[in-house]
Amino acid sequence: MKVGIVGIGHSRFGRRDDVTVQELAFEPFVEALNDAGIARKDIGATIIGASPVYMTQRSIAGPITEYLGLNPQPVWLTEAACSSSAVALRTAYALISAGMHEIVLVLGVQKMLENPTSEVLKIMGRSGDVQWEAPYGTTFANYYAMYANSHMAKYGTTSEQMAAVAVKNHYYGAMNPLAMFQKEITIERALESRIIASPLRLFDCCANADGSAALIVTNEEKAKQLSDTPIWISGLGAATAPFSLLTRPELATLSSAVEASNIAYNQAKIQAQDIDVAEVHDCFTIAEIMAYEDLGFAERGKGGEFVEEAYIGGKVPINVDGGLKAKGHPVGATGCSQVVGIVKQLREEAGKSQVDGAEIGLTHNVGGHGQYCVVHIFSR
Amino acid sequence: MKVGIVGIGHSRFGRRDDVTVQELAFEPFVEALNDAGIARKDIGATIIGASPVYMTQRSIAGPITEYLGLNPQPVWLTEAACSSSAVALRTAYALISAGMHEIVLVLGVQKMLENPTSEVLKIMGRSGDVQWEAPYGTTFANYYAMYANSHMAKYGTTSEQMAAVAVKNHYYGAMNPLAMFQKEITIERALESRIIASPLRLFDCCANADGSAALIVTNEEKAKQLSDTPIWISGLGAATAPFSLLTRPELATLSSAVEASNIAYNQAKIQAQDIDVAEVHDCFTIAEIMAYEDLGFAERGKGGEFVEEAYIGGKVPINVDGGLKAKGHPVGATGCSQVVGIVKQLREEAGKSQVDGAEIGLTHNVGGHGQYCVVHIFSR
Repeated sequence: MKVGIVGIGHSRFGRRDDVTVQELAFEPFVEALNDAGIARKDIGATIIGASPVYMTQRSIAGPITEYLGLNPQPVWLTEAACSSSAVALRTAYALISAGMHEIVLVLGVQKMLENPTSEVLKIMGRSGDVQWEAPYGTTFANYYAMYANSHMAKYGTTSEQMAAVAVKNHYYGAMNPLAMFQKEITIERALESRIIASPLRLFDCCANADGSAALIVTNEEKAKQLSDTPIWISGLGAATAPFSLLTRPELATLSSAVEASNIAYNQAKIQAQDIDVAEVHDCFTIAEIMAYEDLGFAERGKGGEFVEEAYIGGKVPINVDGGLKAKGHPVGATGCSQVVGIVKQLREEAGKSQVDGAEIGLTHNVGGHGQYCVVHIFSR
Repeated sequence: MKVGIVGIGHSRFGRRDDVTVQELAFEPFVEALNDAGIARKDIGATIIGASPVYMTQRSIAGPITEYLGLNPQPVWLTEAACSSSAVALRTAYALISAGMHEIVLVLGVQKMLENPTSEVLKIMGRSGDVQWEAPYGTTFANYYAMYANSHMAKYGTTSEQMAAVAVKNHYYGAMNPLAMFQKEITIERALESRIIASPLRLFDCCANADGSAALIVTNEEKAKQLSDTPIWISGLGAATAPFSLLTRPELATLSSAVEASNIAYNQAKIQAQDIDVAEVHDCFTIAEIMAYEDLGFAERGKGGEFVEEAYIGGKVPINVDGGLKAKGHPVGATGCSQVVGIVKQLREEAGKSQVDGAEIGLTHNVGGHGQYCVVHIFSR
């Protein structure tokens, strides 16, 4: 039995002091209901993807459930750091395939900016190893700085190549009215920006953000009934990598991404070259370069050169909604946001950044510093 | 297709300064693997039930996965406050029924006592409404004190009846070598203990604890192959209740528990009177009395009188492993711990607290102050 997406919603990402977390959840919820043409009573269960540690309100599923008017339906939260809402979608797929629910709402939501930046960095850093690594100063940028240094040393990847990823994603972000940053940048500006964690500069890093996104997921029969353009989940891969850097044989790749994408390609019976459009987890520019390789789009070590192929018209248009880099990265919402981007592409509703004739899309959502990775493949 | 439990493990509950959270997770993991007669490589995915907010280490699934040697298998966390590991089991059921994994490890784990008590109370209180209720001092005991006052006013329930629940659960806790408290108490001692939140006294409240429990869950074919005594999950119910007390029509019941148990009974095609043994969520003594009624064991309003029927030999032996009250309540581990108790009963491995010939068991795991409830029914 196939499982499909028939409704999507996406809030404006960025600083959202104008709303509570419940109100932020409400925005894409209503949009997704309307898109699917269903009422809230049609929802059988809701899975919320969020990292609970950024919010004063604990166990956020309770207040959101009430605010959205979903009682007494079951609701719970899934957490896998930055891939929290990708595992929420995986859970929804399982609930529907198992016949336990007919329609499941997947809701990714996160408010990070009510905390001071120093607190956000500390909380985020603590999803790395607090016992053996945090004492040496491992914030999140530090992990990816180590990956970047390793990739540069091993393959000759350059700061210019990393900056080119930022230029591309801001180019597309400028077309996305929901993105946190809607201005193009130049390679010079990126290269002149201040060092955050060497070799990563400000423009190599995505920004903490507030945001939310929602998906209405259902079984094959219901999907065909509700939508003329259901988007099918044709492959699902999830994997983990060793948590401690010490135990990873190498830093220039995320083994979880290699593993998860292979599982997803096998299930969908396709190969990397069959992907028409992809959303990859560019929390840092080096992360996108590593993703090119880990997902099989570029040869190992050639990721730095691949960015030109990731524009529309290239081999695989990637992050043409702006990616985490331009949209901002509200941890729990990012996985859902990526799926919204791909659904729009496969429905041919992506406006200025539409990839002509896109039929197969992929999302790559990395959790933490790569200890989790979830890859989904979609087809129309 | 049926889904069954073929392996269980349970750590000692209580103050566990002797172990890290990873080591605490390891204890029931190894026990469950040995019990099921499988190796770690046989596990397809792991769902961890835990509340992430009590730990300095964020996104705990990553370090636990590495420590247990489970990379590269997918692992994520589920959270629904105190019912976090019941929704983990619900997720595992879905993954197996959907054919996505053959064997799933469900692991409930929580270390709370590394925080000072005042901090634990504050964190726990924040799973209630931080905007409208916390400013009035709603710690967890306060919520249940309101329920108790309501139940007393409406039905004439007495402090003696609440104390009798504590006496029963400590009576059975004294037989459980893994319980935090292994001493019997008297009704006088309970009634003389200090007020925590009127009318609740110290002995009306369960204790914060460290602890862990694990389940190996698999499909029908594999379960029959691995075990002579697989325990089947024959009914699953999950529901939510309004989050804010303001919006609840009444405080002497948890509508989520009524809803969840009805769903589970219907799926299992049984009624309350068919249950041979149950584990209910006695975070406070009044919670057990409300559960008697919400689950249909006692008539509405007669819960206070029912405690004598909840001993072995009575109508439905309840919490005969000591319940949260005597075992302690390590938030994320409690749901799994309840299931371990029922599996032991249905396997006739419960030792001194065995209910003769128990064939059908129930677990009732409440999250927060009742905004979540998960009910599972098991049969042998």
